[in-house]
Amino acid sequence: MVFIFIMHVLPVALTPKRILLIGAGRVAAQKARALLDSDCEIAVIARSIRDPFFLAAFPHPLHLRAFAPDDARGWDIVIDATGDRTLSKRLWERRKALGYWLNCVDIPEYCDFYFGATYRNHDLCVSVSTGGASPRYAQRIRDLIAATLPERDTVFYRELRESRKSERKQVENRGQTGKVFLIGCGPGSREQLTLKALKTLKFLDVALIDALVGREIVELLPEDCRRIDVSKRKGCQQFPQETINAMMLDHARQGFRVGRLKGGDPLVFGRLFEEATFLSRHGVALEIMNGISAFLSGCLAGGITPTLRDYSAGALVVSAHLRETRFNSDWIPLLKDFPYTLIVLMAHSFAGKIREAAQNAGVPLDIPAAFVSKIDSPGQTTVIGTLEKLETMARHCDKPAILVIGKAVAKALEMPHTGKRITL
Amino acid sequence: MVFIFIMHVLPVALTPKRILLIGAGRVAAQKARALLDSDCEIAVIARSIRDPFFLAAFPHPLHLRAFAPDDARGWDIVIDATGDRTLSKRLWERRKALGYWLNCVDIPEYCDFYFGATYRNHDLCVSVSTGGASPRYAQRIRDLIAATLPERDTVFYRELRESRKSERKQVENRGQTGKVFLIGCGPGSREQLTLKALKTLKFLDVALIDALVGREIVELLPEDCRRIDVSKRKGCQQFPQETINAMMLDHARQGFRVGRLKGGDPLVFGRLFEEATFLSRHGVALEIMNGISAFLSGCLAGGITPTLRDYSAGALVVSAHLRETRFNSDWIPLLKDFPYTLIVLMAHSFAGKIREAAQNAGVPLDIPAAFVSKIDSPGQTTVIGTLEKLETMARHCDKPAILVIGKAVAKALEMPHTGKRITL
Repeated sequence: MVFIFIMHVLPVALTPKRILLIGAGRVAAQKARALLDSDCEIAVIARSIRDPFFLAAFPHPLHLRAFAPDDARGWDIVIDATGDRTLSKRLWERRKALGYWLNCVDIPEYCDFYFGATYRNHDLCVSVSTGGASPRYAQRIRDLIAATLPERDTVFYRELRESRKSERKQVENRGQTGKVFLIGCGPGSREQLTLKALKTLKFLDVALIDALVGREIVELLPEDCRRIDVSKRKGCQQFPQETINAMMLDHARQGFRVGRLKGGDPLVFGRLFEEATFLSRHGVALEIMNGISAFLSGCLAGGITPTLRDYSAGALVVSAHLRETRFNSDWIPLLKDFPYTLIVLMAHSFAGKIREAAQNAGVPLDIPAAFVSKIDSPGQTTVIGTLEKLETMARHCDKPAILVIGKAVAKALEMPHTGKRITL
Repeated sequence: MVFIFIMHVLPVALTPKRILLIGAGRVAAQKARALLDSDCEIAVIARSIRDPFFLAAFPHPLHLRAFAPDDARGWDIVIDATGDRTLSKRLWERRKALGYWLNCVDIPEYCDFYFGATYRNHDLCVSVSTGGASPRYAQRIRDLIAATLPERDTVFYRELRESRKSERKQVENRGQTGKVFLIGCGPGSREQLTLKALKTLKFLDVALIDALVGREIVELLPEDCRRIDVSKRKGCQQFPQETINAMMLDHARQGFRVGRLKGGDPLVFGRLFEEATFLSRHGVALEIMNGISAFLSGCLAGGITPTLRDYSAGALVVSAHLRETRFNSDWIPLLKDFPYTLIVLMAHSFAGKIREAAQNAGVPLDIPAAFVSKIDSPGQTTVIGTLEKLETMARHCDKPAILVIGKAVAKALEMPHTGKRITL
């Protein structure tokens, strides 16, 4: 049993301070590097230089002599990097009288404050602290954040800057040109978003949201982002494509950053072409982002490897719906001696029709098949059976679901899976 | 021209301080909320309560009276949330004499420090500051970071905690059980990684890296992570699958967090089944992650919509390589009157053979086709032509490349694309 004491520190950003650093060894150099990134005034007192960092190029006063008690007077901050506990204790006891704040490196009880792991980018400064518990852990989190926030001067930062300027303009009418982002939001969970999608979502003014976009992804939108649910209206009627196009165009022309949020990947039955060419024709700036496709996420959840040596030399993705309502059975005859895995989107409602059409087309009904339903959400369920059992399988799960058909499906039983899995 | 003054603040985490807050209105309540998350001692002086936050449940002393000059004596920090500039100025002038640090809300020139936008999770504390330039911008970045770092008590945090414990154990032998992460790293850029993959990469001990994993993704690995390039050995020979399996098993048994980094999505020709079932059979804990598949990223780059009404009712993905070396032409006869888009991986070297096999199979050679090469990297190039022109097309781009065949390819010319695009 390890007891971990959690100190709740108060993070602040100091405006320029006058700082005295005692010591010029490796530890002092580490601290000095952090200080040089700020606008603080710095001086160093040390008996001798023991780290090359303090040689010729060091741009601040460096006094090579023993520290005298009165040296600490007049500074806002004193940093003791000597490792000399007697000195640290004395500095701590006199700090109220002399009016400085103290940081004795690696001696938490003599610290008015800790340094965190810091990431800087222009005027943006991110600091990670664990209240002294684990500097290495803080550094790793800092590195994770640094990887999330792109490097200096990228388009992203320019856009952030724009969005910052637009804060000032909020009372005026927006003068800038808008842009539409067609965003593949993946199968549902936040974890499966791409970094690019995440960053884009966080700075949208308006979002047009499809039915299959995960709820926890919608929650990522900024509070002041206008959300438009384009999946349904008055019960079950969908927005016509023309209305969605017009809404995107209208908001972009008003200067907004418009997100078109789609489940999965917009290239897979996402009406991407219709929307992208419409916007291009109207001269609207446009950025399109892939997302994790629900069909690949579904296969993984069920343990199904769609390409698998000696079982499937490829994967074909089709949809059981055509033009929203009509049942599409064109792909069914392919199943006669098909050496590939077939993945059928929106197949759940048509289980009976698919079995029937397969039988009529002379497709062997003992081909392995699986429904994977509610992909990447808490109710995720895989039902494995054969074409013959399709209707029973459908009754064991809900819409939305993908149907996977082929010899590779049977091999799923040897693979790890996530969520619930039923074999019929 | 807007001149933006950038102040380079020094971020620090304060150990518990004694803080006096002057004012009990909306602004004071905002600051008090931030202070309550820390272990600081707090008192409030205000003429009257003007924000319900300070009513009954407020757990700190609250003195309802006018502020007297001597009230500021004896505190480490004074926060003036009154908005009274005369008071702020007086507090600023006396702060050295009375020995406190001052924050006058929204008056940068009377601030020893600023508060950032803060994210807390257990003992982890992340603070974002823009040196006072734009609090809203800082909040959005904070929200972006909060979305990247998962919520309290998730598996991720437990694992971070483990990795923290393991810091202490580094000198001992590792006692914990290892785990293998099969990670789809997407087509190449950091931006196309999923959040899940990013977080996992950042805490690996060992990484086995495939050829098609982007260089900037490999750079994300922690400094002390052991990198093993399993793509090539001595020139061009690949590691046999058995060796890769044995290396994963061996490192996991030593208690390491082992990453198996694969380009694109491991479900698409990624030998996922072979590796996953091997590890399962040996009782090794295993987590598998989808990635953005290179074939979908490539289509988007070239402006190709693989599913497109009236042009393609689905997409079939195959590989031109079988068992690393043999040319696979099984899919070619499908092209006779194929209503789907066909995407062929690793096709670049076989351009001539594909054209020849198509001709021999009686496939019409005027079917539109495109190579997309160096997907998601600086040299990304799309070459659009027909099956007839395949060899010429291949000469206009390099390996690795995907080949996309079908009527939908011709429609790419109406779509936006990224990288270079050539039409032959």
